[in-house]
Amino acid sequence: MAQVAVMLDGQVVGDNSIKINTLKKIQEGVPGSISFLSNPKYESFIYSTDASAVIVDTNFKPKQELSTTLIKVDDPYLSFTLLLEEYHKFISFRKTGIEEPSFIGENVTLGPECYRGAFSYIGSNCTIGENVKIYPHTYIGDNVEIGSNTIVHSGAKIYANSIIGKNCVLHSGVVLGGAGFGYALQDDGSYKTIPQLGNVEIGNFVHVGSNTTIDCATLNGDSTTIGDGTKLDNLVQLGHNTKIGKHTVIAAQTGVSGSTTIGDYCVIGGQVGFAGHINIANHTSIGAQAGVLKNTKEGDQLFGTFAINVKSWISSYAVFKKLPELNRRLKELEEKILNLPTV
Amino acid sequence: MAQVAVMLDGQVVGDNSIKINTLKKIQEGVPGSISFLSNPKYESFIYSTDASAVIVDTNFKPKQELSTTLIKVDDPYLSFTLLLEEYHKFISFRKTGIEEPSFIGENVTLGPECYRGAFSYIGSNCTIGENVKIYPHTYIGDNVEIGSNTIVHSGAKIYANSIIGKNCVLHSGVVLGGAGFGYALQDDGSYKTIPQLGNVEIGNFVHVGSNTTIDCATLNGDSTTIGDGTKLDNLVQLGHNTKIGKHTVIAAQTGVSGSTTIGDYCVIGGQVGFAGHINIANHTSIGAQAGVLKNTKEGDQLFGTFAINVKSWISSYAVFKKLPELNRRLKELEEKILNLPTV
Amino acid sequence: MAQVAVMLDGQVVGDNSIKINTLKKIQEGVPGSISFLSNPKYESFIYSTDASAVIVDTNFKPKQELSTTLIKVDDPYLSFTLLLEEYHKFISFRKTGIEEPSFIGENVTLGPECYRGAFSYIGSNCTIGENVKIYPHTYIGDNVEIGSNTIVHSGAKIYANSIIGKNCVLHSGVVLGGAGFGYALQDDGSYKTIPQLGNVEIGNFVHVGSNTTIDCATLNGDSTTIGDGTKLDNLVQLGHNTKIGKHTVIAAQTGVSGSTTIGDYCVIGGQVGFAGHINIANHTSIGAQAGVLKNTKEGDQLFGTFAINVKSWISSYAVFKKLPELNRRLKELEEKILNLPTV
Repeated sequence: MAQVAVMLDGQVVGDNSIKINTLKKIQEGVPGSISFLSNPKYESFIYSTDASAVIVDTNFKPKQELSTTLIKVDDPYLSFTLLLEEYHKFISFRKTGIEEPSFIGENVTLGPECYRGAFSYIGSNCTIGENVKIYPHTYIGDNVEIGSNTIVHSGAKIYANSIIGKNCVLHSGVVLGGAGFGYALQDDGSYKTIPQLGNVEIGNFVHVGSNTTIDCATLNGDSTTIGDGTKLDNLVQLGHNTKIGKHTVIAAQTGVSGSTTIGDYCVIGGQVGFAGHINIANHTSIGAQAGVLKNTKEGDQLFGTFAINVKSWISSYAVFKKLPELNRRLKELEEKILNLPTV
Repeated sequence: MAQVAVMLDGQVVGDNSIKINTLKKIQEGVPGSISFLSNPKYESFIYSTDASAVIVDTNFKPKQELSTTLIKVDDPYLSFTLLLEEYHKFISFRKTGIEEPSFIGENVTLGPECYRGAFSYIGSNCTIGENVKIYPHTYIGDNVEIGSNTIVHSGAKIYANSIIGKNCVLHSGVVLGGAGFGYALQDDGSYKTIPQLGNVEIGNFVHVGSNTTIDCATLNGDSTTIGDGTKLDNLVQLGHNTKIGKHTVIAAQTGVSGSTTIGDYCVIGGQVGFAGHINIANHTSIGAQAGVLKNTKEGDQLFGTFAINVKSWISSYAVFKKLPELNRRLKELEEKILNLPTV
Repeated sequence: MAQVAVMLDGQVVGDNSIKINTLKKIQEGVPGSISFLSNPKYESFIYSTDASAVIVDTNFKPKQELSTTLIKVDDPYLSFTLLLEEYHKFISFRKTGIEEPSFIGENVTLGPECYRGAFSYIGSNCTIGENVKIYPHTYIGDNVEIGSNTIVHSGAKIYANSIIGKNCVLHSGVVLGGAGFGYALQDDGSYKTIPQLGNVEIGNFVHVGSNTTIDCATLNGDSTTIGDGTKLDNLVQLGHNTKIGKHTVIAAQTGVSGSTTIGDYCVIGGQVGFAGHINIANHTSIGAQAGVLKNTKEGDQLFGTFAINVKSWISSYAVFKKLPELNRRLKELEEKILNLPTV
């Protein structure tokens, strides 16, 4: 408790020795939990809450007797959010050490404070930074580099030669570095495999959602890349040699075909499809389910298949919904013209 | 065989001591298999089948000599279906005991008749009901509850604090409780992670298809929920804080954005996308590939992006296919009008 | 080096004893790498490259002194491609032997040169051909057959009774043989499970991309099938009892509903949806994001939801984009006609 108060730079009114182990809304407070009171309309709850502590405004003056301990701060909501983040960090990073059985190849460097879960597999010649959390059933192929403070959740699969930055989160079932969809059509109608020998490189602070798949680049020495701060949702597909810029967000089930480049600060909706070999400019916004076939210009806001300006699409769709009526009106006009005596 | 006859309340004609170990169509019968004869046009097969037993109608009188044993019942097709279900149950639940190596944390309660496959991982403080089948490579985080008779197939990943009901089936590669896609845009264009501290709660008789992903709720104490009897197909995505009702079916590759509620008895096609923060009423039907942006009313049948009444959409699409012709006719009319002598 | 020269039927100019361990573009050459020079505009790089060897045309005459060894061949580009393929094969198949812990059931036959990675699981009564590579965390249920030279990447899940041909590649997270989405609607609005007792059968030279899901057939004895040489991209969904022909390619995130048949030599784009119980003829092409509801004819090229001839769709969409203008023009005509003195 004293620790929390110091972290929030707050003043304790009440028992400074209590222990806090979770965060709850004030109306759901339990012994051991801490809550906050920001909106005055919730004030009544503070007099009946079972929460062990409540964060309140510096100027808060109780109108009844209180059984809970108070921490007075300048902005209770902000302080609570800060606590949530610290709590989340604590939960995410508390595992350390090695659970057995686990597998580790030759010539692997592991930083301090790492966690290697049971049944995790690390190939040879890997470099794993400090405080990296490798959950159970994770597969890490040979020659992989992972930066410090990155979390790899259970069952993520990282093919050989991948490079992952610092402070990333890879969720369960992510597949990084699978072979791209590259086949050369033969004269007899069959397909010959084009060897996929490149890798995947991911920057810092990148999040990759559950069961998302990212293919390796085709050529030895080339990479499929994701820039710093970019967030991918679940079940996203990135083809071979795609390049995603910095601070771009891509919602669930979107697919990017091979060799397409998406710039920085883009916002891409869910279930969008991108053709191959196109360039999506910085600050492009694409609405959900769009099909994008062409390069975009900075600031474009697109929708539909084939994607066009979102406002144009909405205007067209408004008329689409009235097409049967339009058709009827056109037919009526044709008949009227036909029946014109002067024609 | 005697056991089968008792189960079906049937009368055995022939050898009561034979052993049955599989079910086959009558034209594909093999020694040890049981078949059925319901449609008279298949009768010829019964005289040549290698099946050890055939279920027939009480009134069935063979026209030639038979080498197979008969079980006479009131409704052969129904009886065979019943056997299929029993056989399926037998196949699904026959594994018991522990394969090593497997991992189990502290303070875990496991009911009788459970199966824990090799390389399965169960965290601490979990409660697993009786007859639960945990296949190899399954990951179960801390504080998870699983009700009796639930099957978790190989490689399903269940994050900490998830609650799963009775008689559920989670297929391979399911990810339950990954972090939702919640990020707060910062002034510099980067994104700050909003901690995802809630869990996932699933009712009874829920099926979740292969590689489907279900995110946890955002707030500590909140849940992403799925009601009793609901079935999700493969590669479905449910965002954080989604609430799916009872006895709703959702086909493959559909995505539901965060905080959207889908009611009871809904039928949702494949590859549908739902916007966030909307309410889908009970008994709503949504056609495949639709994009749903608004609340629906009970009984709505919708299609298209943006989803509208399915009949309206089909009428509009019928005209869409003739748009080039409409355009030409409109141009002709304009010319005719222009050429009218009286205008 | 001598070995490479023999393989390429080339003539060595320089040191025949050097060791080659990787392939690089000539401008990225490093000691131990081999490159090629085909396009004369890259010739300058050959005088400065750090590559240990460069493949050149038989007629190549250096204009300056060279520190690299040359291999003279008839077609440098073709020879390099050949080397790439050999290198890829070498990389893919070099793992052999057993990493522990791994799990193997009773009565399993394994051919020579197989690799069984740590934490891989093979059930009972399986037959695994020679040179099969089973990466870590792979799950192989009972009674599975896998042909020679097939690679199963980390974390692929193969349910019991599956049959996989020779020279296949299954990528990470693939789920083969999960239960199909079969439920019978009951009078009370709930769903009863239809037992899924069939299997999956895959031909030779089939590739299945990361996290793709393929459901088993419904009936005991029936199979969901994929023909020789067919390639599936990532996150594809094949429903129960689907039949995919030979040498067909299906791009990422496409879904095929139950009991649909797709023929030979088809080209299917990404995010396409197929309705159930339809027949897609040989040599059909379907554009990305299409929704296919009907049988197709050989050579059809379709696009859109519901899919129609791609050229028709594009013509209609061109008018769709002008619908607000069409609407305005129609209204103007109506007004003109109304104002005609003679009407």
